[in-house]
Amino acid sequence: MIEFWFSIGSTYSYLSVMRLTHVAAETGIRFRWRPFNVRAIMIEMDNIPFTRKPVKAAYMWRDVERRAALYGLRPKLPAPYPLSELERANRVAIIAAAEGWCPAYARETYRRWFEAGEPAGSEPNLSASISVAGQDAERVLRLADSDRGKSDLAEATEQAKGFGIFGSPSFVVDGELFWGDDRLDDAVRWLRHLESGPPD
Amino acid sequence: MIEFWFSIGSTYSYLSVMRLTHVAAETGIRFRWRPFNVRAIMIEMDNIPFTRKPVKAAYMWRDVERRAALYGLRPKLPAPYPLSELERANRVAIIAAAEGWCPAYARETYRRWFEAGEPAGSEPNLSASISVAGQDAERVLRLADSDRGKSDLAEATEQAKGFGIFGSPSFVVDGELFWGDDRLDDAVRWLRHLESGPPD
Repeated sequence: MIEFWFSIGSTYSYLSVMRLTHVAAETGIRFRWRPFNVRAIMIEMDNIPFTRKPVKAAYMWRDVERRAALYGLRPKLPAPYPLSELERANRVAIIAAAEGWCPAYARETYRRWFEAGEPAGSEPNLSASISVAGQDAERVLRLADSDRGKSDLAEATEQAKGFGIFGSPSFVVDGELFWGDDRLDDAVRWLRHLESGPPD
Repeated sequence: MIEFWFSIGSTYSYLSVMRLTHVAAETGIRFRWRPFNVRAIMIEMDNIPFTRKPVKAAYMWRDVERRAALYGLRPKLPAPYPLSELERANRVAIIAAAEGWCPAYARETYRRWFEAGEPAGSEPNLSASISVAGQDAERVLRLADSDRGKSDLAEATEQAKGFGIFGSPSFVVDGELFWGDDRLDDAVRWLRHLESGPPD
């Protein structure tokens, strides 16, 4: 099992969210989707990669576009960034993960954000993505906006920090951390190595 | 041809410097080694990835170690960081590139820095690496410390900025920028695509 820690709001997480179900099917590996609030961690660490860094931001969008093409995706970039309702998007994702519909919700959220220009976490993206995942938006948003919804996201974010996570997406394999969509292959290799037999 | 823009002083550039000659031999691709001063660009862009970011720095060293193992390398990490004589190391690299002995010099520099703990750009690493590349250290250091040596590094750094380069290593294929050792495969794929025929 690989833990997939991600925040809706992260640009590179688009790549992992959109391909992870395929990777799971191809490899037979189970991924546990773990939403958290990467922005809270990045602000705490003074790790602000793109805002007021126009050269790096321009490269990021181009790099995401090229990588997306490798995966058969055709986003319209740049997508609206940063998100104004990152926390709400991820509070819903926490509920979705607990109830078993996180991949469908997260994929639709990113599809609308990156391919249709609708900011994730805001309407109409938010309710539409919950509905596409087969859920009642009113019920889910009531839970997401409750004190419990807020504390669950904060708790998940504290857990992420406990693994040394500082960015999204991150993959955790038996405590070993891999950061970035481009490290997914390394995480899979690590799991295979662990599974190949006990150490000497 | 792929332009390989790198700064001695960058940690991830260890991976590219050590494997690039193998990649060139395997692929038949010619790489043009282009040393520049990444620190000057990163300070200008307020892009300081590791200093005062202990969690991210710890991850970086672990990630470099894992990636190095994939390439058959066994560095002793963390290496001394940051370098106090980054500029001198790269002024010598500029001369080495002009005279045709840059790969040998850069590899020995990184080997001593990452595998023997000798900071790059400082003695004994600096003169030893020049000597291993078959050159007279006194001659080279006189050139490197001259006004011309300093202005050549500044000029290369301005050229790097002109390509939108903000980090090391970077690969440039016909104007297309790829950042990071982990994008070398993408750069190779891009060149192959360009070579496969004219566009429609």
